[in-house]
Amino acid sequence: MSAALIGVDWGTTHLRAALMAADGAIIEPRRMPDGLRAVADRNFERRLSALVADWRALHGPLPILCSGMVGARTGWIEAPYCATPAHVQTIAEALVALDTPSLGRVHFAPGVRQGEHAGAHADVMRGEETQIVGALDMAGERNGMFVLPGTHSKWVEVEDGAIRRFATFMTGDVYAALKDHTILSFTMNDSWSEAGFHRGLDMARALEGPGDLLARLFWLRVAALEGALDPNATGSALSGLLIGAEMRQMAQGRAFTLVAGDALAQRYRQAAKYFDVEARVAPPTSAARGQWLLARAAGLIARRDGPKS
Amino acid sequence: MSAALIGVDWGTTHLRAALMAADGAIIEPRRMPDGLRAVADRNFERRLSALVADWRALHGPLPILCSGMVGARTGWIEAPYCATPAHVQTIAEALVALDTPSLGRVHFAPGVRQGEHAGAHADVMRGEETQIVGALDMAGERNGMFVLPGTHSKWVEVEDGAIRRFATFMTGDVYAALKDHTILSFTMNDSWSEAGFHRGLDMARALEGPGDLLARLFWLRVAALEGALDPNATGSALSGLLIGAEMRQMAQGRAFTLVAGDALAQRYRQAAKYFDVEARVAPPTSAARGQWLLARAAGLIARRDGPKS
Repeated sequence: MSAALIGVDWGTTHLRAALMAADGAIIEPRRMPDGLRAVADRNFERRLSALVADWRALHGPLPILCSGMVGARTGWIEAPYCATPAHVQTIAEALVALDTPSLGRVHFAPGVRQGEHAGAHADVMRGEETQIVGALDMAGERNGMFVLPGTHSKWVEVEDGAIRRFATFMTGDVYAALKDHTILSFTMNDSWSEAGFHRGLDMARALEGPGDLLARLFWLRVAALEGALDPNATGSALSGLLIGAEMRQMAQGRAFTLVAGDALAQRYRQAAKYFDVEARVAPPTSAARGQWLLARAAGLIARRDGPKS
Repeated sequence: MSAALIGVDWGTTHLRAALMAADGAIIEPRRMPDGLRAVADRNFERRLSALVADWRALHGPLPILCSGMVGARTGWIEAPYCATPAHVQTIAEALVALDTPSLGRVHFAPGVRQGEHAGAHADVMRGEETQIVGALDMAGERNGMFVLPGTHSKWVEVEDGAIRRFATFMTGDVYAALKDHTILSFTMNDSWSEAGFHRGLDMARALEGPGDLLARLFWLRVAALEGALDPNATGSALSGLLIGAEMRQMAQGRAFTLVAGDALAQRYRQAAKYFDVEARVAPPTSAARGQWLLARAAGLIARRDGPKS
């Protein structure tokens, strides 16, 4: 299979690359532990060159398309946000190109920005738009709710193939901060407890108002001290409480598609089931598929209409 | 004025002592920066002896009553919680005494525990019960809502002189963790901004459900990046959002008494005004008055019925 594109998903804490054929098939995926934060000298070009050197030696100067925080102001080069509603074509038109000595022209996907409007707040995403483009295509859908859980969970409504509106929940970030930097840290660890997570979901369901979360957190402390909650279950209970609060707020009985790695997908599926919502899981190759779709829409992939080589 | 009691309010991060007369008048207040956490060798007796040595030299072996976390399992000696409803007499009966070589008998106020029951969750307080006993007395009241804001804010309902039910909000603890240990830390500082705090209260009023807080937090990040919120106002906005969420949850139009230091009292009064609730502020000597009332109820203060010396 001849290669036609290198797709790169480069975030703060991860770096994934995929060598793809002209039809979008993944020839070889690659992942490295060093995200943007690990590139201390900010020599992103050298880092990426090293990662894809053998691919380029074998297949020549392939087009490269990067998505994720690498295109943020704090990344390699800023690819300004495009506005909602955003679909494949509008995102592809907003790609930013950078000519580099060692890699030739490198393309960067823009993030998506939502302006303040009725019922929605100013919000931004970067990287998720590419995953959603890919997930939509692989599901053969043009509408739906897509959920990208994590440090900053995104709930994204897609209508007629376009990212229409979204909301970001700081669930993972808040979880880590509360677990390690509040009084809860004294009775909490990273053990996984199914029962603890379920207890947290129960707590989320019982929340009575917008400020109740601040009160229920302290119960985790009291319960751990008094033995009403196994100390090895408090971390999972906190996770269940926060994910449950997020799920209850957003799911509202409507099915959604999870774009997430295994462990997180499992927690969100469990929470969805608890709140009686259907959750599908998108294939893990959504980002690469999105990169390929954007590259194709931008005319970066050579059409192979002639006889196959 | 002859001394009759040494009251000690000893928490994790503070140590305050008061030399008091038989009628409860404060002869001399004293405060030290070293809370329990600063007593690395856990030699609490030596620390307290040093603090009150000159008082004892002058006035003899006065009774000493300590309140606060010093009576917790992790403190000097555990004074087990007494149950709600808790009033002066029940709390006084639960004092725990410790005989010490250098200070004689030292008494410790118990905390108060609320069991799980209809509409209330298992919860505990330690130190606040003594402040409330004092604040009630100084206000000449037997009923009301008392609010003790801070790391772990307490909302305490008093009926007929007894602590009847309460709820703890982790507002201050959550504020510090989010401010310093999430993505918000990159666009946040400790500046005080009246406008920022007010913006946070606006955000709290607009919260739409139990999980909405997790989403609105991210707006602080977006707004700071986009210039919709002065970076010097984001800390105050976060404070306003959290205090507002707490206030909105609990105040429900009902007047309350704040037992708090100046800076916090000011923020909570402003939030109360915003939510159209009347907030009074208790005198700063509530803890000392509470210690004196408990000591008197426990018979630790010599009655001076004879001719005055």
